[in-house]
Amino acid sequence: MGGDHGPAETVAGAVAAWRAHGVPVILVGDEPRVTGELRRHGATGEIAVAHADDAVPMGERGAAATALATSSLAVGCELVGRGRGGALVSAGSTGAVVSCAVRGIGRSGVLRPALAVALPSLRGGATVLVDAGATADPSPAMMAQFALLGAGYARAVLGRPDPVVGLLSIGSEPGKGNRLTRQAGELLAALPLRFHGNVEGHDVLAGTVDVIVTDGFTGNVVLKNVEGCVRAALAMVAHAGIASSQQLAGVARRYDPETHGGAALLGLRGTVVVAHGSSPAATITRACVVAYALAGREPATGIAATAAERVT
Amino acid sequence: MGGDHGPAETVAGAVAAWRAHGVPVILVGDEPRVTGELRRHGATGEIAVAHADDAVPMGERGAAATALATSSLAVGCELVGRGRGGALVSAGSTGAVVSCAVRGIGRSGVLRPALAVALPSLRGGATVLVDAGATADPSPAMMAQFALLGAGYARAVLGRPDPVVGLLSIGSEPGKGNRLTRQAGELLAALPLRFHGNVEGHDVLAGTVDVIVTDGFTGNVVLKNVEGCVRAALAMVAHAGIASSQQLAGVARRYDPETHGGAALLGLRGTVVVAHGSSPAATITRACVVAYALAGREPATGIAATAAERVT
Repeated sequence: MGGDHGPAETVAGAVAAWRAHGVPVILVGDEPRVTGELRRHGATGEIAVAHADDAVPMGERGAAATALATSSLAVGCELVGRGRGGALVSAGSTGAVVSCAVRGIGRSGVLRPALAVALPSLRGGATVLVDAGATADPSPAMMAQFALLGAGYARAVLGRPDPVVGLLSIGSEPGKGNRLTRQAGELLAALPLRFHGNVEGHDVLAGTVDVIVTDGFTGNVVLKNVEGCVRAALAMVAHAGIASSQQLAGVARRYDPETHGGAALLGLRGTVVVAHGSSPAATITRACVVAYALAGREPATGIAATAAERVT
Repeated sequence: MGGDHGPAETVAGAVAAWRAHGVPVILVGDEPRVTGELRRHGATGEIAVAHADDAVPMGERGAAATALATSSLAVGCELVGRGRGGALVSAGSTGAVVSCAVRGIGRSGVLRPALAVALPSLRGGATVLVDAGATADPSPAMMAQFALLGAGYARAVLGRPDPVVGLLSIGSEPGKGNRLTRQAGELLAALPLRFHGNVEGHDVLAGTVDVIVTDGFTGNVVLKNVEGCVRAALAMVAHAGIASSQQLAGVARRYDPETHGGAALLGLRGTVVVAHGSSPAATITRACVVAYALAGREPATGIAATAAERVT
C-alpha cells in the first residue's frame, strides 16, 4: 500500500519480481484492492496476499504510525518477525518503516537502526552512506554502531573484506565538526575498524572511503543533495547545448536512487529494504530482488550481532 | 598570509584588485615577505602593508587562533574594527576567521555570525545558503537569526525585495527533522519573513526558495557536497565520451566556489569575506571586489541590526 503509487505500482513490481526473477512474494494490504491489482496482471492465486485493515498514510510521522498495529506496514513487519517472511520491502515513509520494523521485527542488539545506501563512486564501485535517514538524533555511541553496521554491509554486500570507514565532518582534522561528530570520532577511532578519520562533503562521490558514517539528519540531506546536484549539473549540460538529455540519460540513471532499488535498514533481526516513495514498478522489482539477495546472505543479523558485541 | 597559497597568490590577487578594479587594499602580514611579493609585481609603495608578527597556521582550530593576537588575521580584524579598513578578506580557515572577527570587529547584536554563500540556481539567479560553516552547533534562536541575516543578504546583494526563506530538513512537513531543526522551524514560522517551510537536499540547487537556512555543520557539508557532486557528474559525462572536459568547463565554472569570490560572514559590525583556502590570485581579486561592493552597501551592519531587533 506504501509509496506515492501504491498499490498499483507495488503490485506490478512484485508480480515482475516473482515472474522475472523468481522472488517469492507475499503482498500485504487491503485484500480486495490488492487482489484487484493482481487480477489486472492475471496473477490472482499466483501470489499470496496477507490482509491488513489499514495503511500508514504517506508523510505521517513515525510516532503516529506505530499506533496503527493494523497497518499493512505493521502486519508485514510481524510476518517477518514471526519468520513467515524472509525480508520486508516498503515504499512507505522511512520514519514509519523504522518504527514498525523496530516493533515488529525487533532490533538486533543495536541501540537504533540505520539506513545504508550504496552511492556510485567516481573510482568505480560504491560508497556506503550510513545513516541515510533512520535516526535523526543519534548519540555518539549509536554512530559508532552505524560505523560497524556500515562496515558489515560493505563486507557482505559490496565484497570489501576490510572496508575503510570515514566520518562525515567539516574539516579533515580530528577536532573538526559539531559536538556530536567530534564525540563520535573519538569512539570510532577506538573501534576495530580501518578508520580513515574525517571526510567532507566533496568526498561523498569521490570514492575516498568505502563507508561514510553520519547522523540520519545530515545523511538524508546529503542523499537528497546528491540526487539534486547531479540532476542540476546534467540539466546545465543539456541547457548549454553540449549534449542531449537522451545522451545524458545513462549518467542520470547511475545516480538515480530509483536505479539502486532501495536502501537497507540495518540493525534489525531481519532484512528490510526501503524503496523511494516515488518508486515505479521497476524499482519495486529491484527492491524485491535486493531484499531477497540480502536475506539469503543474512547480512542484517550478522552485522547487528557484530555491532552489539563491540559497542554498547 | 592565509590560504594554501599565501602570501604569493593573495598578494597577486590584491594587486590585481587595485590595478584592474580600483579596490584600495591594505595587505596585512609579515612585512618583509609581503613586500617581497609586492616587488615581484612592481607594486611596492603602490599598496600599503600593515605588519603582523605571526600568521594563523592553516587547519588550526578557532580556539587556538584567538590566542594569536599578533596574527595577520587578528591585526586585519582590528583594522576593520577601528574603521581603518572597510572590509576584511581572508583565505584563512573559517573557524579562525570567525573567532578573530568576533573579537576584533565585534558582533552586531546577533548571538553568532553566519556564513552566507550564493549558490547558482537551476531557475537562474542564486540561492543563499546560510549558515555555510561559521557556527557548527547553533541554538534554534541562532538559526532564526541566520534566517533574518540570509534574507537581509538576499535583499541587499541579490536584489530580492521579499525573499522566500526555507529551512533545510529531511521531509517537507513541519514536524520533520532533527530536534534542532524542528525547534528552529517553530521560531522561523513566527518571524516576519516569507517562510516557505521545510526544504530538502534536492532543493539546494533547484531554486525552490531564495534563502536556505541550516546549521553551520549541515551547511558546510552541503556546500562541499554540491562542489563534489557537480564535479562527479561532469566527470561521468566526460568519461562516457559524451562531451569533452573543455566543453564542460563552462558548467564546471558556474558551480566552482572559486568563481563566486568567497562567502560573506554576516552578523558583524563590518564586512568580512572568506575565500576558499585553495584560492588562486583571480579568486582573491574577486573576493576583494565583492567585499568592496558589500562594504559600500553596508549590508552586514544593516542586516545584523534588523536581526538583533527581532530575535534575542
